[in-house]
Amino acid sequence: MEGVSNEACSLAGHWGLGKLIVFYDDNHISIDGDTAIAFTENVDQRFEALGWHVIWVKEGNTDYDAIREAIAKAKEETERPTLIKVTTTIGYGSPNKANTYSVHGSALGAKEVDATRKNLNWSHEPFCVPEDVKGHWSRHVKLGAQHEAKWQADLAAYEKKYPQEAAEFKSLISGEFPAGWAEALPKYTPESAGDATRNLSQACLNALAKVLPGLLGGSADLASSNMTLLKMFGDFQKDTPTERNLRFGVREHGMGAICNGIALHGSGLIPYCATFFVFTDYMRGAMRISALSEAGVIYVMTHDSIGLGEDGPTHQPIEHLASFRAMPNMLMLRPADGNETAGAYKVAVENRKRPSTLALSRQKLPQLAGTSIEGVEKGGYIISDNSTGNKPDLIIFGTGSELEIACKAADVIKKEGKTVRVVSLVCWELFEEQSAEYKESVIPAGVSARVSVEAGSTFGWNKYLGYKGKAVGIDHFGASAPAGILYKEFGITVENVVAKAKEVM
Amino acid sequence: MEGVSNEACSLAGHWGLGKLIVFYDDNHISIDGDTAIAFTENVDQRFEALGWHVIWVKEGNTDYDAIREAIAKAKEETERPTLIKVTTTIGYGSPNKANTYSVHGSALGAKEVDATRKNLNWSHEPFCVPEDVKGHWSRHVKLGAQHEAKWQADLAAYEKKYPQEAAEFKSLISGEFPAGWAEALPKYTPESAGDATRNLSQACLNALAKVLPGLLGGSADLASSNMTLLKMFGDFQKDTPTERNLRFGVREHGMGAICNGIALHGSGLIPYCATFFVFTDYMRGAMRISALSEAGVIYVMTHDSIGLGEDGPTHQPIEHLASFRAMPNMLMLRPADGNETAGAYKVAVENRKRPSTLALSRQKLPQLAGTSIEGVEKGGYIISDNSTGNKPDLIIFGTGSELEIACKAADVIKKEGKTVRVVSLVCWELFEEQSAEYKESVIPAGVSARVSVEAGSTFGWNKYLGYKGKAVGIDHFGASAPAGILYKEFGITVENVVAKAKEVM
Repeated sequence: MEGVSNEACSLAGHWGLGKLIVFYDDNHISIDGDTAIAFTENVDQRFEALGWHVIWVKEGNTDYDAIREAIAKAKEETERPTLIKVTTTIGYGSPNKANTYSVHGSALGAKEVDATRKNLNWSHEPFCVPEDVKGHWSRHVKLGAQHEAKWQADLAAYEKKYPQEAAEFKSLISGEFPAGWAEALPKYTPESAGDATRNLSQACLNALAKVLPGLLGGSADLASSNMTLLKMFGDFQKDTPTERNLRFGVREHGMGAICNGIALHGSGLIPYCATFFVFTDYMRGAMRISALSEAGVIYVMTHDSIGLGEDGPTHQPIEHLASFRAMPNMLMLRPADGNETAGAYKVAVENRKRPSTLALSRQKLPQLAGTSIEGVEKGGYIISDNSTGNKPDLIIFGTGSELEIACKAADVIKKEGKTVRVVSLVCWELFEEQSAEYKESVIPAGVSARVSVEAGSTFGWNKYLGYKGKAVGIDHFGASAPAGILYKEFGITVENVVAKAKEVM
Repeated sequence: MEGVSNEACSLAGHWGLGKLIVFYDDNHISIDGDTAIAFTENVDQRFEALGWHVIWVKEGNTDYDAIREAIAKAKEETERPTLIKVTTTIGYGSPNKANTYSVHGSALGAKEVDATRKNLNWSHEPFCVPEDVKGHWSRHVKLGAQHEAKWQADLAAYEKKYPQEAAEFKSLISGEFPAGWAEALPKYTPESAGDATRNLSQACLNALAKVLPGLLGGSADLASSNMTLLKMFGDFQKDTPTERNLRFGVREHGMGAICNGIALHGSGLIPYCATFFVFTDYMRGAMRISALSEAGVIYVMTHDSIGLGEDGPTHQPIEHLASFRAMPNMLMLRPADGNETAGAYKVAVENRKRPSTLALSRQKLPQLAGTSIEGVEKGGYIISDNSTGNKPDLIIFGTGSELEIACKAADVIKKEGKTVRVVSLVCWELFEEQSAEYKESVIPAGVSARVSVEAGSTFGWNKYLGYKGKAVGIDHFGASAPAGILYKEFGITVENVVAKAKEVM
């Protein structure tokens, strides 16, 4: 019933995943009762429409031969995924609870367990595995050892014939990265041409794809907006499975779930996926599973604020940065320019046990002085400061596209004879992991005059602003207009940051 | 391609929505190019599997008679929804851009507009509507007036025959509530039996359904866990459309989208829908649309913390309260007991222009002294206080199931001769809307010793804790164990609140 299953199964059909066999336990019972109260579609026909091979086992509780036969047929089919619909009775054997929702979510209870044992002629003690059953299953120990030995022999033969490919394969599954991989990341100076961080992200992806054989991914039908195409590769399709650009279609939730699968497969692949930042709302379930399951998926989320302009409030994220900063084990990165985007990718690639979400701009941004990969790795760091003794008159925090505004506001205030520190808080989670000494060196407790600027919800900023600081942000939905007009209309401006700074200094 | 469309269309087929006609613009172009790169399923067959009537118009750009005929056939079909698949060429008429993705997201440009005009033999000035076109369409003004007059006459006849039903209908579409409706909400004293707020929620829903004829809703296959059944009504099904319990199946996103439609239909219906709080991740897209579109949907979200116990971290919300507090125009309510649950429903029903999310406990909670409907309407209020002059030694904030812990910790500290105020911050958004005087009367600036307790992310609490306060919460994923063990393990305890209070006093 869940939409994500249709998204994923539609892609499985499109890709012709002939090795995929899905068992559908067609027991007609859901938590609220018979599935007929909400689900009366023709499942076989739907899966056939999705390009699947469908087999129906009518007596799933008893007809083991039919199940064996279905599996054999599914293996014979190499062009299409197979759905084996197995019609069963839930709670089979329980005389009073079989075929009811009560066996879905709660235990049978001692009395009904007893009745079920009697009904099934099962005389063994609880947790006893009879010898004949044990013998039947134990044959797989031997079979498994044989399979493994064969696989190892095949690999050795392959290694002899293709030493380079075998070395790459072994390196991939080891989880180690090629030495010096991070040197491939582009570097920038303030004199480098300005660019949107979504474009700078594409430069990183294309640079990394050359040195990281496991990097692959794509977008939910927004590749040309998310800038996620790997230019030296073609599309991963049914007949081109060695290519690395995945075309997910408009299926965000399925995309995230598929990337979780790729990351957790343990074969050293590093999946990235992309859409507009606001559409993380469609795939949040998969992103939380990344975080919970320690899957190092890289979420490339462009169009990260009102700065996307004309598409308007349906497309403009407001609360999304806050919502991911609150999510455990998710790295929420919002780089400001080329060096920070490179830093974000260094962090995202290295973190194989937690997902990273990169919020990237649609609009062009300048390359800033003081940004660095090393800074990003600390989560928060000083971009500029004209004070001495770790006691500036003011700290201005910024992230992403607003770090430029923070820098410009600092310049205005410095001209009035004040000392100002600009801090990039590109990844709060990483900053929180730094030592107390480092944190104090960036945000000294003694400095209470603080202002933050970020084109998003101010929710959460109080943590860094202390009792006196002020946040410049947007706590309402956006609007449709060119980015420049929106920034001015909503007060995300140098003037407003300067005004707020004067209130707190 | 989006999963939500399959969820909604599966339900439309199940419910037999014979009046529904959907036009599918089958132009084979998506943003990334030809849909064939990601979408090769048989759409007709899929919709037939979902129980739809499917009609194919092969020449959608030119064959108007076929479109007219399809609409007529769709209207004749009253048992099934109809999909009219209209195969078209995107950018039809443009000699150089037709049938390409470049006409999806950007303007043709002056040169191509000119070429298209020539190609289509269109000689009129821009924005000119020729007289024959105007005449053709203007006939609908007269037709529309006739339709309205007929409808008014029908209503008048109905009113004469069924005065009571007509009065109810008029009251519904007026958007006004029956006088005294809120009196139906249950009231509790500290002596009333304790209960889970999900059960107290069911009492509210059942009480309100009797006085609010427009209240209807249901759950995503968790009715018996969310406690959302209206006991005096049956299931809304194909043959029972006057019943009020909706069975959404395991389709959270579709459920939210359908409730948006019900709320925005303008017929005075008040939709509620339900699942476990953590599964808002599946339907966040729809919930944000509620907020953005000013749809007063009531989201009944039970199992709102680690307090749900054994189902474990996949089912235990952590960051969800923070994520909705950050969302514009969403009321995030977390009631603590019977009076607060009643208050949450009063707020939710009255707010027809913004959605409300109610976070409700699985576990049993006591009825607390000092809670009230009026307090909930202010978003934050004093539950208890043994100080005078608005200057307690300590303020303890709590919400929902942890308000009990806040009260117990206050009792411990009071015994040590201190003055303690307990504040329920049941709805941050409503509290922020109160006057500065009221806010100061609840959280005086002069009291810096503050502690919060909530079984969720501490993200955002700094706003109320000030520079010295401490948050008791959970900034990591949960675990599977009985609720009592988890609360102890993760430090959501009276002892921990007392210890934190002593640090800040």
